Amino acid sequence: MVAVLKPGATQQQIDNLVAWLKSRGLDVHISVGRYRTILGLIGDTSQIDIDLLLGLDIIESVKRISEPFKSASRTFHPDDTVIDVAGRKIGGGHFQIIAGPCSVESEEQILNVAESVKEAGAGLLRGGAFKPRTSPYDFQGLRAEGIELLLEAKKRTGMPIVTEIMDASHLPLFEEVDVIQVGARNMQNFELLKELGKIRKPILLKRGLANTIKELLMSAEYIMAGGNPNVILCERGIRTFETYTRNTLDLSAVPLLHELTHLPVIVDPSHATGQARLVRPMALAAAAAGADGLMIEVHNNPLCALCDGPQSLTPEQFADVARRVWKIREAVTE
Amino acid sequence: MVAVLKPGATQQQIDNLVAWLKSRGLDVHISVGRYRTILGLIGDTSQIDIDLLLGLDIIESVKRISEPFKSASRTFHPDDTVIDVAGRKIGGGHFQIIAGPCSVESEEQILNVAESVKEAGAGLLRGGAFKPRTSPYDFQGLRAEGIELLLEAKKRTGMPIVTEIMDASHLPLFEEVDVIQVGARNMQNFELLKELGKIRKPILLKRGLANTIKELLMSAEYIMAGGNPNVILCERGIRTFETYTRNTLDLSAVPLLHELTHLPVIVDPSHATGQARLVRPMALAAAAAGADGLMIEVHNNPLCALCDGPQSLTPEQFADVARRVWKIREAVTE
Amino acid sequence: MVAVLKPGATQQQIDNLVAWLKSRGLDVHISVGRYRTILGLIGDTSQIDIDLLLGLDIIESVKRISEPFKSASRTFHPDDTVIDVAGRKIGGGHFQIIAGPCSVESEEQILNVAESVKEAGAGLLRGGAFKPRTSPYDFQGLRAEGIELLLEAKKRTGMPIVTEIMDASHLPLFEEVDVIQVGARNMQNFELLKELGKIRKPILLKRGLANTIKELLMSAEYIMAGGNPNVILCERGIRTFETYTRNTLDLSAVPLLHELTHLPVIVDPSHATGQARLVRPMALAAAAAGADGLMIEVHNNPLCALCDGPQSLTPEQFADVARRVWKIREAVTE
Amino acid sequence: MVAVLKPGATQQQIDNLVAWLKSRGLDVHISVGRYRTILGLIGDTSQIDIDLLLGLDIIESVKRISEPFKSASRTFHPDDTVIDVAGRKIGGGHFQIIAGPCSVESEEQILNVAESVKEAGAGLLRGGAFKPRTSPYDFQGLRAEGIELLLEAKKRTGMPIVTEIMDASHLPLFEEVDVIQVGARNMQNFELLKELGKIRKPILLKRGLANTIKELLMSAEYIMAGGNPNVILCERGIRTFETYTRNTLDLSAVPLLHELTHLPVIVDPSHATGQARLVRPMALAAAAAGADGLMIEVHNNPLCALCDGPQSLTPEQFADVARRVWKIREAVTE
Repeated sequence: MVAVLKPGATQQQIDNLVAWLKSRGLDVHISVGRYRTILGLIGDTSQIDIDLLLGLDIIESVKRISEPFKSASRTFHPDDTVIDVAGRKIGGGHFQIIAGPCSVESEEQILNVAESVKEAGAGLLRGGAFKPRTSPYDFQGLRAEGIELLLEAKKRTGMPIVTEIMDASHLPLFEEVDVIQVGARNMQNFELLKELGKIRKPILLKRGLANTIKELLMSAEYIMAGGNPNVILCERGIRTFETYTRNTLDLSAVPLLHELTHLPVIVDPSHATGQARLVRPMALAAAAAGADGLMIEVHNNPLCALCDGPQSLTPEQFADVARRVWKIREAVTE
Repeated sequence: MVAVLKPGATQQQIDNLVAWLKSRGLDVHISVGRYRTILGLIGDTSQIDIDLLLGLDIIESVKRISEPFKSASRTFHPDDTVIDVAGRKIGGGHFQIIAGPCSVESEEQILNVAESVKEAGAGLLRGGAFKPRTSPYDFQGLRAEGIELLLEAKKRTGMPIVTEIMDASHLPLFEEVDVIQVGARNMQNFELLKELGKIRKPILLKRGLANTIKELLMSAEYIMAGGNPNVILCERGIRTFETYTRNTLDLSAVPLLHELTHLPVIVDPSHATGQARLVRPMALAAAAAGADGLMIEVHNNPLCALCDGPQSLTPEQFADVARRVWKIREAVTE
Repeated sequence: MVAVLKPGATQQQIDNLVAWLKSRGLDVHISVGRYRTILGLIGDTSQIDIDLLLGLDIIESVKRISEPFKSASRTFHPDDTVIDVAGRKIGGGHFQIIAGPCSVESEEQILNVAESVKEAGAGLLRGGAFKPRTSPYDFQGLRAEGIELLLEAKKRTGMPIVTEIMDASHLPLFEEVDVIQVGARNMQNFELLKELGKIRKPILLKRGLANTIKELLMSAEYIMAGGNPNVILCERGIRTFETYTRNTLDLSAVPLLHELTHLPVIVDPSHATGQARLVRPMALAAAAAGADGLMIEVHNNPLCALCDGPQSLTPEQFADVARRVWKIREAVTE
Repeated sequence: MVAVLKPGATQQQIDNLVAWLKSRGLDVHISVGRYRTILGLIGDTSQIDIDLLLGLDIIESVKRISEPFKSASRTFHPDDTVIDVAGRKIGGGHFQIIAGPCSVESEEQILNVAESVKEAGAGLLRGGAFKPRTSPYDFQGLRAEGIELLLEAKKRTGMPIVTEIMDASHLPLFEEVDVIQVGARNMQNFELLKELGKIRKPILLKRGLANTIKELLMSAEYIMAGGNPNVILCERGIRTFETYTRNTLDLSAVPLLHELTHLPVIVDPSHATGQARLVRPMALAAAAAGADGLMIEVHNNPLCALCDGPQSLTPEQFADVARRVWKIREAVTE
């Protein structure tokens, strides 16, 4: 950690600060420049609250050299984490496609979609039971009943299931769920993350709409610090000034996260773009960028086109995407 | 609501759509342009899920004309809402300063700060007991004990207290709290908002770092739809590309919110800027922009300057800000 | 074009407005809703200044239905534009890689790089002669001399050259240049765009750091409205809150632009990410997203590693990227 | 300047780098931490191109300690710069309101507006002759004729005039103009900035829509490095995800710029918000934040309300704003 002092810092102030830092077990190297004095803090700085330092009158800026995340950091865990979900492996060269409808609507719907995405090569089934909606007047999901229907689809198809949790008090309903998803809006719901750290089920953690890559890793750290090492990261688009797409899919996050962490990284092109016709190119691009998996919305309801989400593919479109994704994987990894 | 159809829409598709819309009780006006056909939907469109419409193959874009919020909308409630917190009124011309430390640390600290901000003109006391922190290794607040200390300060000074909730399961601890704060990171924690709609205590709802003004109002709508009309909105800075400040305080949100809603709007210049020396100019600017109140961090610990938050004022600085704020209010409202 | 009127608009005001719109040759359809009245303007609305309408007291919002760009729009020109640069075609299924150093530094450097990127499959040579730099104290490029060196490399290798213009007064120096690049910071230098509309050379127009896709197309329209139809669009990253990468590469812009316009769309992964190790994954991702070409920085100076830009590939790295890009193209287009 | 080395850097690489840095006249302090080695570079680092350093394989990150701007920096020029425009002083406690129409449209219009804003207390007259417009089909201003009309208004009212330049080749037309404005879209038109560095007229430099405070100062540095010390900075809103306002006015830039630079800082609330009804609260807020002046659009054309810009005040509204602004100034500066 490097602390830059303000020009007017007195020797007495500097001595006090150095003494305090040493009392915390750190070594301090002092560099006196023409305009500024710089302190190099050496040792375990992960316990130093950067905001406390910044609060001091004599501090101009502070820069962490080692990242504030430990369990998620590749520095301390160089090998890729491989997460095994009922035999489906994600990470470390293993690639999975997670597919299914935005919302679980009925037994017929979820079973139909499950069968068709399984046939097209999806490894896991997704479906929303608890739905975070911007408006209190929009459909909030089938909730407990939706999870029942997902479990029925799991029984029939053998596919492990992924579904979103919105509050820690619902955890008992998720006992048979294979992967618990934390949605973008809950990425910094720290009380929820702490609860998910107490279990051992894989957690699919989505990046928040306005969260940095570092904050995503810090949220993973919350889960891992609690004892649960099974975290899958998911890029799903960030909020920018561009309005043609719902969000801007940040694919450079994929190789960056692979540098910074050993955790698997998947991409959700459906929510990022919000438009079905952009899902195919963005799914292929995500595979080309080196993602460890994809999460794609698929809907199967030719009788009721009105209920189709604007971002869902038909099973036929999904099968075409899946086929091309595997070809791309070859070009990338050969 | 206006729906623009894609150029290739067939008459059959249009007829089907119009029939479906009429079955929902809406009137449909059709305008045929040279390149596009436009449908004007008239009636109660608040129940139409805009995403469902967008999902149709023949729809190019959809635009709401009336806002999707009802209870929060000034259209349906032209008069300012005035919220009365133990005699301190906020909104409708009433202005309050809420002040106190970022975190409650000890009885001595909270009592000292409470006494000094009361003397300088603060109407309510704030203090963090449950602290949302980006890192699991940072101080998480005194939690239940912090609330006890706040209640002690309330008893001694008579000031109503404001403190943040992080999970609905903690609600029993907040029974004696006067105003419950929902932090920026929980602005779209919809399960929490629903629980807060079931009580009648005033809720101070902070705008999320990447949330639009419309989303802020939709989150207020969650609370109000549950039956709790006592919502205070708070602008506290949004996330932009600028890195000199922690966030960018969006003061134009204040007059905009006053147009769109009858709810009171306050500003938190401390969290927005993250730097104590910017709090004074931004507090004055917020008052000049017409805010109904301010929320300001004040710290009182000369013996331990090291613990000062970088964004906290001393009681003396706070007293100077408060004095100038009242002068500004005169220039604005005369 | 759809104009939504404010609730309080009087019949007299509406009549005046309608009369004025009709005097401009437009048909006006009026829809009276419960809360709002909506005007549908039919005819050639491209000459209506949307800001003028918004300035009226009775107007709440205005929405264009047909896009404000005409020459660049796919609606009026459904077939892909193919740009032929001395036999190298871009667009309409033709893919080109443009490669070369960030700055032209010496004859030896530019010749070496040109030879090696040609061998690896690059179709065009790029190199900066005029360099836009944030700081007046940074290297500003070899300017006229740099163009001379590029022309020498063109003569020796037969590769057409691409280089950036910073001011219309430099145009005479660009007579032998094959493609003139407009940098991100000049995307809305309208006086420059107008001058480039007067010539017939292909213009490579980069998207500005904070410009929307629509604004990019409007800037293309400036060039095309002047009579120059040869515009190549280039996505090179936008500015967001994320700080790990220099910019956020917006790859969804590629399929979106392909929908909206017939112009070719290429991607510059080097400037977008600012880091050489992210260039490969982002180049592959761009090809997978359907780009018509890539623009990649390559440096060739083993004796002076200190001068390597942080975003440049070595010729060996470039050759590996180029080889994989062609494989990806197969998976996408088969 | 602080350079952080990557974990794997060899002693040989470090020695080479240190030798090279010393050959540039810098002192190098080395701090060896547990995980990283840090180099502190001491001396005149303003000539070190940070991108060159970042390009080295062994460098993880580089952080400037002293700012890269010199002439604009308050460190080297502690006293406020006061700019005198024909007797109207701006900066160092002097406050000016610049007012006038968005576009100069006719002699009658500009004279009427000039008279009324003068009477209401404006010190300088603004008016657009060259208009940067997103669309080539929108009104581009009266250009040379517009400047003639402004000069006529100057002669009649005695008010100095401010108008925008779009290309250095137009400079001869600006000989009698008092303050030359560089618009937001040209903030990084470096060739233009260099030309403006060769004259001595005050330059009003607007912050770009997506430019940081540091970049704004670097653009001022371009002008000042050329020899022209007369730069007035102008905050006019930045581009964010919020769509209710055209841009987000970043008022915290005002006190921040006052810390970093000695140059005067004014605010343009008209362009920032794009809505006349937000101009008043944002003008007052800007004054409260400590701005050295305001730039406000005023229109005076009761016969042709249709031509009113959506962001322009009437002369009566302007007079009310001006009166309140002076009251706010008292509360701030007393």
